Amino acid sequence: MEVYFDNSSTTKPYTAVIDEVVFGLKEFYGNPSSLHNLGLKSEKKLRECREVIGKTINAEENEIYFNAGGSEGNNSVLKGILKPGSHLVTTPFEHASILNTIKGLETSGVKVTFLKLDKNGKIDLEHLKNSITKETVLVSIMHVNNEIGIIQDLKSISEIIRENSNRAKFHVDAVQSYGKLHIDVKKINIDFLTVSAHKFHGPKGVGFIYIKKPNVLLPLIEGGAQEFGLRAGTQNIAGIMGLKTAANIVNDNIDENYQKVLDIKNKFIEKLKDIKDIRINSLPTDEFSPYILNVSFRGVRGEVLLHFLEESGIYVSTGSACSSKERAKIGGSYVLKCLGLSADEISGGIRFSFSDDNKIEEVDYVIQTLDKGLKFLRRIKK
Amino acid sequence: MEVYFDNSSTTKPYTAVIDEVVFGLKEFYGNPSSLHNLGLKSEKKLRECREVIGKTINAEENEIYFNAGGSEGNNSVLKGILKPGSHLVTTPFEHASILNTIKGLETSGVKVTFLKLDKNGKIDLEHLKNSITKETVLVSIMHVNNEIGIIQDLKSISEIIRENSNRAKFHVDAVQSYGKLHIDVKKINIDFLTVSAHKFHGPKGVGFIYIKKPNVLLPLIEGGAQEFGLRAGTQNIAGIMGLKTAANIVNDNIDENYQKVLDIKNKFIEKLKDIKDIRINSLPTDEFSPYILNVSFRGVRGEVLLHFLEESGIYVSTGSACSSKERAKIGGSYVLKCLGLSADEISGGIRFSFSDDNKIEEVDYVIQTLDKGLKFLRRIKK
Repeated sequence: MEVYFDNSSTTKPYTAVIDEVVFGLKEFYGNPSSLHNLGLKSEKKLRECREVIGKTINAEENEIYFNAGGSEGNNSVLKGILKPGSHLVTTPFEHASILNTIKGLETSGVKVTFLKLDKNGKIDLEHLKNSITKETVLVSIMHVNNEIGIIQDLKSISEIIRENSNRAKFHVDAVQSYGKLHIDVKKINIDFLTVSAHKFHGPKGVGFIYIKKPNVLLPLIEGGAQEFGLRAGTQNIAGIMGLKTAANIVNDNIDENYQKVLDIKNKFIEKLKDIKDIRINSLPTDEFSPYILNVSFRGVRGEVLLHFLEESGIYVSTGSACSSKERAKIGGSYVLKCLGLSADEISGGIRFSFSDDNKIEEVDYVIQTLDKGLKFLRRIKK
Repeated sequence: MEVYFDNSSTTKPYTAVIDEVVFGLKEFYGNPSSLHNLGLKSEKKLRECREVIGKTINAEENEIYFNAGGSEGNNSVLKGILKPGSHLVTTPFEHASILNTIKGLETSGVKVTFLKLDKNGKIDLEHLKNSITKETVLVSIMHVNNEIGIIQDLKSISEIIRENSNRAKFHVDAVQSYGKLHIDVKKINIDFLTVSAHKFHGPKGVGFIYIKKPNVLLPLIEGGAQEFGLRAGTQNIAGIMGLKTAANIVNDNIDENYQKVLDIKNKFIEKLKDIKDIRINSLPTDEFSPYILNVSFRGVRGEVLLHFLEESGIYVSTGSACSSKERAKIGGSYVLKCLGLSADEISGGIRFSFSDDNKIEEVDYVIQTLDKGLKFLRRIKK
């Protein structure tokens, strides 16, 4: 039996997505910037994709800017708006593409406030309010944390920003929430939102940024006038079409999928009661995304447990695939460290992440294997 | 009849490339940064692609860095090496992703020398020699110009750089030459080389930079440690596999394809003798790539002629798809302007660009249609 519980790392593309990519490669190979029919045909298809995707978050067609994925999107927003002297407010457990970009920006004179988190990972809204100054140009917050699944209250965050600044823009890293939780950029009043296709059964190497009109960003990649001048380079039309197809499917099934993975997560947590010495880092409440279940297994190293599970065809992770270097340095996840967990709990952290591809029966197999593995690994450690 | 003579803008992906992309999407969806088998499987495939591609230019596997294409590659090299006070030597007719990036760098204090060109577009090597100073950190040269096809003498350029500086690095924009002309990065002694897959029947949205060891670049996209720390973001494995397949096919057939398009270009030029008031901007000599034939038709606007040809199913361009804005501003191609052509010749410029997909018989149809179109357009203009 094979069980893929590493869907926050990446997902398997839908068959319909693969078919659409093929359709794109075969029929829309014209360069959208070309003046002739073949170019216009591709340009028209791009516009259609923008429109379809815009609708999924209540945005306009010309507010959707295609790019190569989440890391590029996060870099674009931060580097496209922050200058020496600017002030950024964010959290200490954002994705590596935010945190590592910040390191460089700080050396060039950008000031950064990292918000306090409660024990579940929820932002301290009072701290947010008090952090906003006249120099604050950006508040960048991850909607759903990629390692523990805590959901931030975007509406309240947005209101606090607007009440305390008429300058600060609001960026949401929605890589782990798009297509999983409902997002209405107008209702929440979001300025920038980054999304990556491969997190919801789309192709790798493609994503988009929503940029609320009339906001602009300095381009990260300069050259041609593609993507309204924000990002040079011939568009990856086939990939964008695959993104559009995946976006349609997940958004059409958003509530059904939510319930499906919630049942999986709840059953998993229920069954975990029989396993000793653990800490559930993603609670079964609606403050957490049902797509992610992070558990610390005390007395074992996460990586060792990961490889034990792998022997039985179970694929999980010890945290974000983009942060493996950081984990090696600190002996575990920096996200779990932010939450104040013990060294033992940090070291024994495992992220199980689900998708609509999973079946509830898979939980039984994973729990059995976990139980076996923990007994073995904890025994040999003694 | 349909004739696609816009292959420098983009090419139709090979069927084998599409099949490989599908194979990648289906079988290699694991995140190469994941610690489990599915991740390792993808990571192994990536390494295999690096090795195959490395071999095509005589580079090592770990000198190939995947990215989203030529514009990103050119931005990465320029922004990854040039700092305020640095000196760059380049030409005035590089691709937009070089020229527009330079504009921003100049305002931040980078000094730039644009080399003199002869009437065919060949760099003045004496000027190159005299331009190199102690501050010169980069010489960035397009191997084959994308609009007129002039080939620069990389070997001589490299030698001049090495003789006059032990600091200056050599960057080659090989977007229009990779897979079409033989490139040996070791023999020529190139430091950086940028390539885009969709110019040689690969997928759009994927490319690579060759970076000679032990050179490094500051990353444009920061975050995870992907691509040896140069470019964050989950790799587009399926796209990279398609790139690898396309690279293999074009390099395996490089001499045969060269002869095929050379025959097409030569026949085209031969037949153009019957058409009055033209200027051939891409001579039938081995100083020019056979893949590109730029012709100025006096007394007509290139764009109007383009649309006339399009009515008969013939697809061409008036220049680089990435420079349409620039062309609108100056009434034609900035490349032709650099060569000192008259306003009439600049305005009437058309680029016919070939690939191994084309058939020599297509030339007859295009010439007939051109003749008809020119007679009509020149008559109504009088």
